[in-house]
Amino acid sequence: MEYTEEILVERATNTKIHDVDFSNLAFGKIFSDHMFVCDYEGGKWQQPKIVPYQPFSLEPAAKIFHYGQSIFEGMKAYRDADGSVFLFRPMDNCKRMNISAKRLAMPEIPEDYFMNGLKELLKIEKDWIPTAEGSALYIRPFMFATGHGFHASPADTYKFVIAFAPSGPYFTGKVNVLIEEKYSRAANGGVGYAKAGGNYAGQFYPTHLAKERGYHQVIWTDDTTHEYIEEAGAMNIFVRINDTLLTVPTSERILDGVTRKSILKIAEDEGIAVEVRKIKVAELIEAAENGSLMELFGAGTAAVVSQISAFGYKGKDYKLPELKDTFGARLKKRITDIQTNKIEDPFGWRVKVC
Amino acid sequence: MEYTEEILVERATNTKIHDVDFSNLAFGKIFSDHMFVCDYEGGKWQQPKIVPYQPFSLEPAAKIFHYGQSIFEGMKAYRDADGSVFLFRPMDNCKRMNISAKRLAMPEIPEDYFMNGLKELLKIEKDWIPTAEGSALYIRPFMFATGHGFHASPADTYKFVIAFAPSGPYFTGKVNVLIEEKYSRAANGGVGYAKAGGNYAGQFYPTHLAKERGYHQVIWTDDTTHEYIEEAGAMNIFVRINDTLLTVPTSERILDGVTRKSILKIAEDEGIAVEVRKIKVAELIEAAENGSLMELFGAGTAAVVSQISAFGYKGKDYKLPELKDTFGARLKKRITDIQTNKIEDPFGWRVKVC
Repeated sequence: MEYTEEILVERATNTKIHDVDFSNLAFGKIFSDHMFVCDYEGGKWQQPKIVPYQPFSLEPAAKIFHYGQSIFEGMKAYRDADGSVFLFRPMDNCKRMNISAKRLAMPEIPEDYFMNGLKELLKIEKDWIPTAEGSALYIRPFMFATGHGFHASPADTYKFVIAFAPSGPYFTGKVNVLIEEKYSRAANGGVGYAKAGGNYAGQFYPTHLAKERGYHQVIWTDDTTHEYIEEAGAMNIFVRINDTLLTVPTSERILDGVTRKSILKIAEDEGIAVEVRKIKVAELIEAAENGSLMELFGAGTAAVVSQISAFGYKGKDYKLPELKDTFGARLKKRITDIQTNKIEDPFGWRVKVC
Repeated sequence: MEYTEEILVERATNTKIHDVDFSNLAFGKIFSDHMFVCDYEGGKWQQPKIVPYQPFSLEPAAKIFHYGQSIFEGMKAYRDADGSVFLFRPMDNCKRMNISAKRLAMPEIPEDYFMNGLKELLKIEKDWIPTAEGSALYIRPFMFATGHGFHASPADTYKFVIAFAPSGPYFTGKVNVLIEEKYSRAANGGVGYAKAGGNYAGQFYPTHLAKERGYHQVIWTDDTTHEYIEEAGAMNIFVRINDTLLTVPTSERILDGVTRKSILKIAEDEGIAVEVRKIKVAELIEAAENGSLMELFGAGTAAVVSQISAFGYKGKDYKLPELKDTFGARLKKRITDIQTNKIEDPFGWRVKVC
């Protein structure tokens, strides 16, 4: 046992790192040697710990199994050519995690528990950060209800965890999407803006149906009219019409994505015309038909930018043009170059850990 | 080890039953000695087992912690004066669990696994069924994703469990509710009709806000207009205007409650005028103001019927009359008398287990 700042550290007796093929990583399937864990009990957060990555033991009546109190974040760490370790806008994830916590009636995490836990764990696990193009150390902060009982009410105890997964690219290749006409991911006055587990479970079946029809992902539309596009799978959505980049405003139904807002800032910095406003499916169809629809892409931490090659709507398929130079690729390159310390960061987003 | 039909039974070495005060039970806080467990792996359900009630060991990356794949049912078992054990419409819960499973992209449970597991577990645990007025053995079938990985996609392994909690009444006393004007529990095209964990987590915060204002529960309204009432907390809602009993139709946003449909059937059998149709908040207010609003109650397995004494809307409170004989009490008595084998069951709902 050792202490790093106020964190109790219990080291793994063996490392699994030599079993890992870092040149051929899948996404989120291999986990590093240690994790950060902090329990919430008796109305307060207990001793923060870094311990070997290991299973949790949970009562069958633990509320996570019954009442869906679970939230998470997705982040990445990068290592540059000198071996220095960087995070990207980590405080934004911390703040959003607490926004999610509040909506799910879970305790908020003190920012220093989140940030110190993350940084100390990164220092211990820095050899786990892959450096191959398109790879990164995927970081998963998450919290769930451990308190037990069958009464439908919030738990009295919770577990906050940060775990690491050295990962390759999330998607490979271009993506063919279906604009959803029936199913929805979020209600007005619901939890769509939170990174809550239940938001994802609800997407799997409609996505499965779309896959059966030959699509990779679903473009979510508003649940009232299905006339407005909202998100692309588990990502925010961007549309390029002629040379204007469009995205929809965040709302109680739409996640305030870190990649989304970084793209908006970079686009502005690069002089790309940007509009943040509601986007009708009809506008997308019209633009596809008159040739002004240039690009469609999803934006999120896991894939950064995921270019869409075609979309289906009401039984008809629309192909996007195959451009040589896309806004998507250009914006993705600038973000990842900033993240990996290859270029200057005029926005103050990169945080050096060690 | 022993086998009961095709179920492998591992008996607990000690019983906890002598530690339990059956005359003073809370709801869902004490669990019986055994549980039924069946794992789904490699595309099929594995050996069903009855084992001692004990914690589960789960990987930190298990999808239950991240992507919300969890569903459940609520049922009860009763013991009559002769010691015979009964279930109430158990196949309805089994069928609904599979409807939930499908929507959450989880594997469906074969009906015989569900029913045999439940019955064999009940035979072993029959001494755990409380017999005091208002008490019952609460039965919690549930399923969650055990497969792990940070990719946002359905798990490849699941655990189906049935656990028992000898329980006293869910609510005590009359309930003061708030008609919700901002938050919602379900989207059109969402998962509101499923008993999915995430549906409950999303209710806790709005319910907490209502509690801060002096209410016990929230009456949910449609997420598009908030003009129509939909559910009462985690229960279906019934309204009595003059001598007509009203409830809203089930939909993709509203749970098809077993108690709800039993009440409709009994009301019809007893010659009570029933209307199943959309109910506007405005209609409720008007009826409260002109004196025709007689009763408001929630209906669900846990509480059976939960009579509402007052409701708040747009800053104003409306009191329900204090009637001597309510439809709610009368319907609750008939249901519980059928459940506990005190009266004839003309509907074929009661299932004798042993």
